[in-house]
Amino acid sequence: MKLFINPSKAEWLSLLQRPTKSVEAIEETVNQIFKEVKDNGDTAIKKYTTKFDGVALENNIVSKSEIEEASKLVNDDLKAAIQLAKSNIEKFHSAQKTDKVFVETMAGVECWQEKRPIQKVGLYIPGGTAPLFSTVLMLVVPAQIAGCKEIVLCSPPNKEGKIANEILYAANLCGVTKIIKVGGIQAIAGMTFGTETIPQVYKIFGPGNQFVTVAKQLATKYGVAIDMPAGPSELLVMADESANAAYVASDLLSQAEHGSDSQVILVTTSQPFADSVSSELEKQLAVLPRKAMAEKAIANSKSIIVDSNETALELINEYGPEHFIVATTDNEFFVDNISNAGSVFIGNYTPESAGDYASGTNHTLPTNGFSKAYSGVNLDSFQKSMTFQKLSKEGIQNIGNAIELMAEAEGLQAHKNAVTLRLNDLKK
Amino acid sequence: MKLFINPSKAEWLSLLQRPTKSVEAIEETVNQIFKEVKDNGDTAIKKYTTKFDGVALENNIVSKSEIEEASKLVNDDLKAAIQLAKSNIEKFHSAQKTDKVFVETMAGVECWQEKRPIQKVGLYIPGGTAPLFSTVLMLVVPAQIAGCKEIVLCSPPNKEGKIANEILYAANLCGVTKIIKVGGIQAIAGMTFGTETIPQVYKIFGPGNQFVTVAKQLATKYGVAIDMPAGPSELLVMADESANAAYVASDLLSQAEHGSDSQVILVTTSQPFADSVSSELEKQLAVLPRKAMAEKAIANSKSIIVDSNETALELINEYGPEHFIVATTDNEFFVDNISNAGSVFIGNYTPESAGDYASGTNHTLPTNGFSKAYSGVNLDSFQKSMTFQKLSKEGIQNIGNAIELMAEAEGLQAHKNAVTLRLNDLKK
Repeated sequence: MKLFINPSKAEWLSLLQRPTKSVEAIEETVNQIFKEVKDNGDTAIKKYTTKFDGVALENNIVSKSEIEEASKLVNDDLKAAIQLAKSNIEKFHSAQKTDKVFVETMAGVECWQEKRPIQKVGLYIPGGTAPLFSTVLMLVVPAQIAGCKEIVLCSPPNKEGKIANEILYAANLCGVTKIIKVGGIQAIAGMTFGTETIPQVYKIFGPGNQFVTVAKQLATKYGVAIDMPAGPSELLVMADESANAAYVASDLLSQAEHGSDSQVILVTTSQPFADSVSSELEKQLAVLPRKAMAEKAIANSKSIIVDSNETALELINEYGPEHFIVATTDNEFFVDNISNAGSVFIGNYTPESAGDYASGTNHTLPTNGFSKAYSGVNLDSFQKSMTFQKLSKEGIQNIGNAIELMAEAEGLQAHKNAVTLRLNDLKK
Repeated sequence: MKLFINPSKAEWLSLLQRPTKSVEAIEETVNQIFKEVKDNGDTAIKKYTTKFDGVALENNIVSKSEIEEASKLVNDDLKAAIQLAKSNIEKFHSAQKTDKVFVETMAGVECWQEKRPIQKVGLYIPGGTAPLFSTVLMLVVPAQIAGCKEIVLCSPPNKEGKIANEILYAANLCGVTKIIKVGGIQAIAGMTFGTETIPQVYKIFGPGNQFVTVAKQLATKYGVAIDMPAGPSELLVMADESANAAYVASDLLSQAEHGSDSQVILVTTSQPFADSVSSELEKQLAVLPRKAMAEKAIANSKSIIVDSNETALELINEYGPEHFIVATTDNEFFVDNISNAGSVFIGNYTPESAGDYASGTNHTLPTNGFSKAYSGVNLDSFQKSMTFQKLSKEGIQNIGNAIELMAEAEGLQAHKNAVTLRLNDLKK
């Protein structure tokens, strides 16, 4: 880890800088594939599945029997673990349901807000060697609770034309309505425009590489919403001598193994503690299967010594970490005052892995400082708030004159007329 | 209005199509101005204020004395109207506050969700002949209730270097922290990067012309969130013979006066009623000050006759109107079953103007079919949801094994280790 001791505020900006990637080279490819999928539907989908996934599929819809077969191949211990995680995620996201907000703002002026489900959602689950079935839980469970009618899941096929067993098992367990073997840019384009086999959706969720990220951004230009912009995953740990250096090192490593561009930061008020974490890191790194990758990320990671909890808090809020672990003698201070973080993990027995898999909170979180303005995925991500209002005769009489005056001052005579007409009738 | 009688579903898509505008020509200009503002700060801001607003400003920050002077020039009746509207908007948005959601998902696994304010928000209010002070209320009131610390308002100066009195009065009344005379692309760029005088913000809200719209889209590429993508304003009225044709016509006209690209649609089960609305429209149009503009919009508007309320509902959900007025014998059917609409206005005495100004609901709403996935602006738009979790020793023992199994199955050994280390210690 690179060590920084009491950096001045002037240095914070560069110290907390995330790596930025130019995506212009990618944009052209993404635009091209979007155009082809829009024009040629499944023909284009097939072409790019063959090209990028190296497999020619007769049929890209996962069948019932495929799901059944895959489910048999997931072992019972893992099934039980997945079910435990699902149950916790359900409990936490169900609790996020909100009642209708009803207010009679003035006599006869009834206003209310209701949340209604987004009817059609698309979930993207990356392929590759490690099947991210945990993300299936994190996206499908709240979509179900929200009441989304169509829940489409796209994931790329492997060279044998299959999706990982665990993904199929989890998707079916949670209630996905359609699973499609399609990945990358072509999957996002398919859900944006709809094809013969891929339904058009209103909002797209899920992680992915930079091609998927750019494709999701492009989807928004065509009127499809997305969960949030994405960047490499991040963890910031705030710890002091009350923390366990071995635990902290293990948490930093669990972030580092995500990839060499992972962001890993330790903030502490104690240099001896930082040193202990460093030596623990070396010890634990040595035996990791993904050692090469984690080593690179750790080399880029930062250990920042600050003079007080107050300075630490200010720095952390400036950074806005995706994951924030706090293990200090005064956790409450940080919990009460943190403004910008995706998810917060408190104390020595709350590793990031807990929230990644099974505590019940969602692991789809804002990276890249987006926690300053964005929520992580939650029940509301699958709903939209709608407002309703109903005025009685008394209601329009109570606010009519104010509307007339304001509309007139804004130069909108027809807005005024709509009220005047009604008020005049009521005077008769 | 163009009349369509029982159009087939195959025709719906083209019938409900919004006009699409190519923005490529604009994008280049927007990119250029963003680059200049990023590189040269206030120098670039001044340059473009001179160029686009035709005024060279010594100082672009609105002073306290300017606000006081402007407030004196707003007449007392209008002040009272603004205060009434503000009070209703406050009541409705305050009621949207949510409590912390706390769940112990398993023994020792405490999870909670809290909403915290976005610290720095930027509001854009267009200039022009009609000062949109109502939008000031709609954005500043919820920002205040949410607890946003910095509330920056940008609005272009007129040729005399001034912002409309009503805007300054409303902004000050509601608690804007800084008012800056800057408009268009350069205002959005300024809030995106920050300049010597313009604070950098985390999220930008507010309406604007297509230049502002494209600039807001570009801001998202630099990590700044926006309220929602924007398109021309829309109204769909569902009415039957129980409705008042004159009222319906006045509502359609209040939408039409927004501009020639306004979307105005009447859906009805009764052709005689559609005819009555048509003749009412002609009568009312004749005396409108903005007649020319409204006439164009009305010429492009559609009157769609359908065979039943069920068909009407399906068509309306397919369109997803920004504003939806329903005045029928069975309003409940529509209220209960509408999936996609920004704001719903119920019955004969609830004109769209009510929500535009004073009922208490927000008038910043999703256009262009975005109501299928986006909420209108509400209290949550100024907050983000953060999650917290705290595991006790018992907690990690309850879910630790599930995490280990899942992490291993995803090939993430370090995620597993972070749990194993802790579990092993607890076994000692």
